[in-house]
Amino acid sequence: MVPLPLKLSGKVIITDAEGRVLLLRRALSSRHHGGKWEFPGGKNDPGEDFESALHREVAEETALQVEFGRVVGAGESRLPDRRVAYLFIEGRVCGGELRLSDEHDAFAWIPRRELTRQDLSPQFRAVAAAYAAEEVTPPDVPAARAPCR
Amino acid sequence: MVPLPLKLSGKVIITDAEGRVLLLRRALSSRHHGGKWEFPGGKNDPGEDFESALHREVAEETALQVEFGRVVGAGESRLPDRRVAYLFIEGRVCGGELRLSDEHDAFAWIPRRELTRQDLSPQFRAVAAAYAAEEVTPPDVPAARAPCR
Repeated sequence: MVPLPLKLSGKVIITDAEGRVLLLRRALSSRHHGGKWEFPGGKNDPGEDFESALHREVAEETALQVEFGRVVGAGESRLPDRRVAYLFIEGRVCGGELRLSDEHDAFAWIPRRELTRQDLSPQFRAVAAAYAAEEVTPPDVPAARAPCR
Repeated sequence: MVPLPLKLSGKVIITDAEGRVLLLRRALSSRHHGGKWEFPGGKNDPGEDFESALHREVAEETALQVEFGRVVGAGESRLPDRRVAYLFIEGRVCGGELRLSDEHDAFAWIPRRELTRQDLSPQFRAVAAAYAAEEVTPPDVPAARAPCR
């Protein structure tokens, strides 16, 4: 049996000044995990680098501009025809007004400690639990929303 | 101050049938962390996808062919002009004979539990400690080296 192809997907844990995290709910028409909650992000287009893909995916899914913070963790999922490796990066909003694409039908800003109580897509539960349990240090971002640098 | 560009680097934790892990020592001529130990891997070339880049980097640095296993974790480092996000994937050797490039001057197969005693490049210490401390389940790979599928 040939190994499944391994694809990379970048996901952004977007936090606001109150420490809440942005989740998006996958439309019921989604091929996988319709109705489950997830973080914004996705795979790069052919030839597109990792950071550009992250910015594009977040903009497509939320109409927000973000700045990236630290690397939070990794995860994976197994589909019938491929495996997906996830890399999770913290982000903060620096521009735009939230507007969803057809890919999602709801959004929510969830207090960090309550992330594990959401009906997350299975491949995001471990990182959400680790993130929710982290010792939170005072944010190194401005308390009010600051423009993109 | 403009945020530093964020680059992605894939690293492979190559294990053998005895559970030892392959480390490479960075040549003393390296611009960063010369003489420190690290995992094989690196960044994709422009237009190259994540998995192809991993295969190419491992082949360039070790002359080995590998098959990838599970996602182990993430990490990051900060350089004067960029940040690098690391994604760590387990791998097993399925072809080739180990031969180093000019980038490294030594290799070692280290028992997993002893990874933290090595003089690792700083950005790999956290993932090495987590990996060394993991509950090890019986390997799901053949006990003897098996050819690439």
